[in-house]
Amino acid sequence: MTRVELIGFALVASTIAGCATVASRETADLGVIVERATGSVQLVNQTKRASLGRIQGLGDLSHASIVYSHDARYAYVFGRDGGLSKIDIVAQRTVARTVQAGNSIGGAISRDGHLVAVANYQPGGIKVFDADTLELLSEVPSTYGVEGKRAKVVGIADAPGNRFVFSLFDADEIWVADLTDARHPAVRKFRDVGRQPYDALITPDGRYYIAGLFGEDGLVLLDMQNLDAGARRILDGYGRGSEKLPVYKMPHLRGWAMAGDYAFLPAIGRYEVLVVDRRTWKQVAAVPVQGQPVFVMARPDGRQVWVNFAFPRNGVVQVIDVPTLKLVESLHPGKTVLHMEFTARGDEIWISARDDDRVVVYNTERFQKLAELPAKSPSGIFFTWRAQKIGL
Amino acid sequence: MTRVELIGFALVASTIAGCATVASRETADLGVIVERATGSVQLVNQTKRASLGRIQGLGDLSHASIVYSHDARYAYVFGRDGGLSKIDIVAQRTVARTVQAGNSIGGAISRDGHLVAVANYQPGGIKVFDADTLELLSEVPSTYGVEGKRAKVVGIADAPGNRFVFSLFDADEIWVADLTDARHPAVRKFRDVGRQPYDALITPDGRYYIAGLFGEDGLVLLDMQNLDAGARRILDGYGRGSEKLPVYKMPHLRGWAMAGDYAFLPAIGRYEVLVVDRRTWKQVAAVPVQGQPVFVMARPDGRQVWVNFAFPRNGVVQVIDVPTLKLVESLHPGKTVLHMEFTARGDEIWISARDDDRVVVYNTERFQKLAELPAKSPSGIFFTWRAQKIGL
Repeated sequence: MTRVELIGFALVASTIAGCATVASRETADLGVIVERATGSVQLVNQTKRASLGRIQGLGDLSHASIVYSHDARYAYVFGRDGGLSKIDIVAQRTVARTVQAGNSIGGAISRDGHLVAVANYQPGGIKVFDADTLELLSEVPSTYGVEGKRAKVVGIADAPGNRFVFSLFDADEIWVADLTDARHPAVRKFRDVGRQPYDALITPDGRYYIAGLFGEDGLVLLDMQNLDAGARRILDGYGRGSEKLPVYKMPHLRGWAMAGDYAFLPAIGRYEVLVVDRRTWKQVAAVPVQGQPVFVMARPDGRQVWVNFAFPRNGVVQVIDVPTLKLVESLHPGKTVLHMEFTARGDEIWISARDDDRVVVYNTERFQKLAELPAKSPSGIFFTWRAQKIGL
Repeated sequence: MTRVELIGFALVASTIAGCATVASRETADLGVIVERATGSVQLVNQTKRASLGRIQGLGDLSHASIVYSHDARYAYVFGRDGGLSKIDIVAQRTVARTVQAGNSIGGAISRDGHLVAVANYQPGGIKVFDADTLELLSEVPSTYGVEGKRAKVVGIADAPGNRFVFSLFDADEIWVADLTDARHPAVRKFRDVGRQPYDALITPDGRYYIAGLFGEDGLVLLDMQNLDAGARRILDGYGRGSEKLPVYKMPHLRGWAMAGDYAFLPAIGRYEVLVVDRRTWKQVAAVPVQGQPVFVMARPDGRQVWVNFAFPRNGVVQVIDVPTLKLVESLHPGKTVLHMEFTARGDEIWISARDDDRVVVYNTERFQKLAELPAKSPSGIFFTWRAQKIGL
């Protein structure tokens, strides 16, 4: 064969291989599983319940979270060590990466998809990046008080109108940054909201930002449609209460389930899931469960609420039937269940069992096990339907 | 060159071309615009606000609607003439097509993505197809009464648990078909629900199925989590009322806006949008608008409600601010506005102006026109985020 021929055949081979890879990957059907111990993520196909590959070298992924570009082709991985990685989940490679702080806890993507913001502990504040290039566009240092210290930033979420909302743990403040002009953020500050906000969520419609308080019982609510009303306290009894039970793990607020007229919340330190009226934010019931709840997640149709638990009772997942508020199932996916993710319409759920190095997929109607996927110390599972959701 | 070489190069060329096509089309970011006059659909990219191509030969597409496969690669097009077409929106071709009835009105896809159901006028009933192959799996004839006539089927929607729910116009009935065994549907019938149900919706969580009545004022509600409660009447005053105003077009129920604690409904025959409490289903307000509303659609964050109108006042789109219930904008996208579709997070909206042969894209915060796309008599616009939604 001549040299030209050889080049021709080499091209054929590599191009066909690349093409097969691309053609089989509809972005609406993909997902990413965080493998925390190895600094890698696994790429998966939801419908096929199959692993597609792995991307390495993403740094410290303990407590890592992920948001997606609007087209769901790119995932932004927020590492614990300040690393921000943009990965192409179709071509399966890292396309940009920056270690933008010393210590971080999560991030968010703007409603228009053009901006990615990271919440930083050290140095405290948020940084805002161009979603295409990861170029740094602006920074909001979390400076507070007379000494000019910077607070740890937690509970960042995107809100309608290219805004980001976040909490300042050490400063007892909530800030709303409007990034309409991405290089000149306009910041509105809410002071003395309650002691040590430690995590937060925004409701699925982007309407209410709710922060949990580490330093006292109760929650703080901010109406994103009416900032002039200011932050107000809700659920004053929510917390460890007078008994001060040992709390093995503060529950994740982001998992909160909004189902019909009710919100389902993990009780702190107690073996209960709390049921709260969404209009009055008053507790109306408590469902006894087998451990301290961590994630309390509604199936997308709101018919069921799935619960996982803190150490040492973390090998069980329980399912609450919403109309009757009864437990209808207890599953044993494996040791150390860390996270759960529903498919978009809720017919299936994927559950990560860290110490068994596997992810288990169940049908949510009949609770059969449908598949097991090997994974290295899996924690968070993030499906691409998040690209379509406010606050995720 | 030898023959082998030529084959090599031909393969390279075709493979690279194919690859480029596929690689640029993330399914999470696509959409389909129905071109009713020409029996074609236009494929678009949301982020690029660009046309990608056109698929022809889909029959009579007046009042056509579309659902997506879970991976959003395939769109199922329900034509008015009983045609059911499965199109591949990445490869841009029709992969299966069947003319399965003489006259049809819409369809739905099951929660697990494996079944597609079509609602038929003639012969009346639903047919259920394999979503992969369009093989007919089962049929539910809408036979009613003592004479064994078949009713026109309207308002079909998918419900949790691989069920389809639909209404029988001539029979005053609502049926729920459980397709857990796809070849043996289990049907539950609700009789005497009200005169002539003509269209219906299911709430975004799949909880409530609500049908409008053509033969009398009022609506019918079925709680999909508690079928034993039976169908019940709500909003008894909803309809043309005692004045019997001329109604140029019965409003589409599927457009109903669920925003926060309220549902926004098009008044029938009157220049008003009705505001209804979602818990009590009582009317609490009415917002005056410039014509007879047809589609009343909430921006995904519930902050705004967008309204289009019936002939002859159908060249205007109005925007209601939800917290104040005031009109904040009137837009003129072109003559004969037929449909509107938000992007998933609601930062933009696409509006079809049939008689100007164009689709106009607006920013929803500042109401600037962002783009115009030529289209042939465009009607419905369907973005692929629908693949992730119950009832769409």
